Amino acid sequence: MSDASKFPYFSEENSVGAVNARIDQAKANPRLANVMEALTKHLHAFIKEVEPTHDEWMTGIKFLTDTGHMCTEWRQEFILLSDTLGVSSLVDTVNHRSGNGATEHTILGPFHVQNHPVRAHGDTICLDGKGEPLAVWGRVLSTDRTPIVGATIDVWQTNDDGFYDVQQKGVQPDMNMRGMFESGPDGRFWFRSVRPRFYPIPDDGPAGKLLGALGRHPNRAAHIHLIIEKPGFDKVITHIFEPNCPYLREDAVFGAKDSLIGDFRKSTDAARAQELGFQAAPFFWEVATDFVLAPGKS
Amino acid sequence: MSDASKFPYFSEENSVGAVNARIDQAKANPRLANVMEALTKHLHAFIKEVEPTHDEWMTGIKFLTDTGHMCTEWRQEFILLSDTLGVSSLVDTVNHRSGNGATEHTILGPFHVQNHPVRAHGDTICLDGKGEPLAVWGRVLSTDRTPIVGATIDVWQTNDDGFYDVQQKGVQPDMNMRGMFESGPDGRFWFRSVRPRFYPIPDDGPAGKLLGALGRHPNRAAHIHLIIEKPGFDKVITHIFEPNCPYLREDAVFGAKDSLIGDFRKSTDAARAQELGFQAAPFFWEVATDFVLAPGKS
Repeated sequence: MSDASKFPYFSEENSVGAVNARIDQAKANPRLANVMEALTKHLHAFIKEVEPTHDEWMTGIKFLTDTGHMCTEWRQEFILLSDTLGVSSLVDTVNHRSGNGATEHTILGPFHVQNHPVRAHGDTICLDGKGEPLAVWGRVLSTDRTPIVGATIDVWQTNDDGFYDVQQKGVQPDMNMRGMFESGPDGRFWFRSVRPRFYPIPDDGPAGKLLGALGRHPNRAAHIHLIIEKPGFDKVITHIFEPNCPYLREDAVFGAKDSLIGDFRKSTDAARAQELGFQAAPFFWEVATDFVLAPGKS
Repeated sequence: MSDASKFPYFSEENSVGAVNARIDQAKANPRLANVMEALTKHLHAFIKEVEPTHDEWMTGIKFLTDTGHMCTEWRQEFILLSDTLGVSSLVDTVNHRSGNGATEHTILGPFHVQNHPVRAHGDTICLDGKGEPLAVWGRVLSTDRTPIVGATIDVWQTNDDGFYDVQQKGVQPDMNMRGMFESGPDGRFWFRSVRPRFYPIPDDGPAGKLLGALGRHPNRAAHIHLIIEKPGFDKVITHIFEPNCPYLREDAVFGAKDSLIGDFRKSTDAARAQELGFQAAPFFWEVATDFVLAPGKS
């Protein structure tokens, strides 16, 4: 039985208790009951603070409905809304509090796909030839600083036009800017790519229109995505951010973190360019990063 | 310009400030900016309290998506969700705080339709002949207790099977259980109907499934809907609740209020039944209510 009979009729003062007393604690999943009790409490506090008019409430109902209607197999507008309100990043943060010395997490994003092509050290992930050449150097270490051999490094980024391959099927080569690498005996790996650039999240739906109405831009700070895994260690989902990006401090989805900014170095060294296979370009970039995994379940 | 540059990178501690600093106060509508600032604050407080796992967050995203996909021209699942979480009733309450002596408001609900048939005093709104006969007596008064002449009283309720006519097109007569009345020279009106009964809100969608998972029933306490209007007075949207309903204290959408419970009286008085046109029934009901309007804009 619920506790509803303990409560008088719904009123402004008792609104949270009146709603939550309806939950039948003997029948409800305890976690669901806790989550919904907290949701009701915070939702009612929001309503009491802003006191929406009936028309404003209806505007909110229509916004949520339009957001739902925008969602398809290929477009998740509620995730975009969660991202742009900082909710996705907050959920990621509370689930990956730092302190064990591992590389910081950030959000996965909607553009990861399974079964990236396995590539060898030094291979390029850039199949369309666009952009400023970049060599990415990495080392995978345990929190005790010992190298981790045979870790998988799953990598993806946009092309130089600011789109992921899956957003431009038929325009970009399949699996453009994607690759799966493995760390060597010294924990090291490297691959060739192009300097990442900022790009707008899809902003032609309700979430994007809300950003516009708030005077917010839709741009993600330039980054490379990585997932680093090794059995016996906690998986790390992270980015390398490009330090010169004008949106570095204004990432539209709040994924940027100080510890994830890469040390990007520009070079015109002809001998080094030759060594890296970048001899055709007037200049190139290099970035070197240590990725630290904590012993764990994964 | 936004205040984003004042903030360090997003963190658990500064999450609300980091998101809200992105709003460009010079470009955003001030009210929208205030509402979104408050929403972000309360939403992040909710996330920090329950610390959802990534899978739980995704369950929430899917729930909202399914709720959006359930919405059609004829079904508003987000309103049902708002109703069952007490949000609709709370919005109604903060917009109609009592204190001026007027009849209390309650929620409009989704089943009002425009252009109810105009009916004369004593007409019945029950076109399908089902249910226990009821005579509804009303008096429309100003807050100074003077009768209000020529007020319109717009009335609707479910039939005795628990459905509104618009939910059973082709099954019930059109405009069954609906009527528009006008108060006479003494502010009075009356009409015939049937005793209202409880009924479930549509519970085959995500909002209904959530109720089920929380061990909550979907039933609305038995009621008659009324909208009472007269130029020069604030409009009143209200219900008359049936005091014997088993769900009176557990109305699924939190619309019930102490002051709105009708004084329903059962009778077997044959002379009175004859007078009211209820002679064919073994018993009948009567309810008499004063409706008080405050001088205002409407």
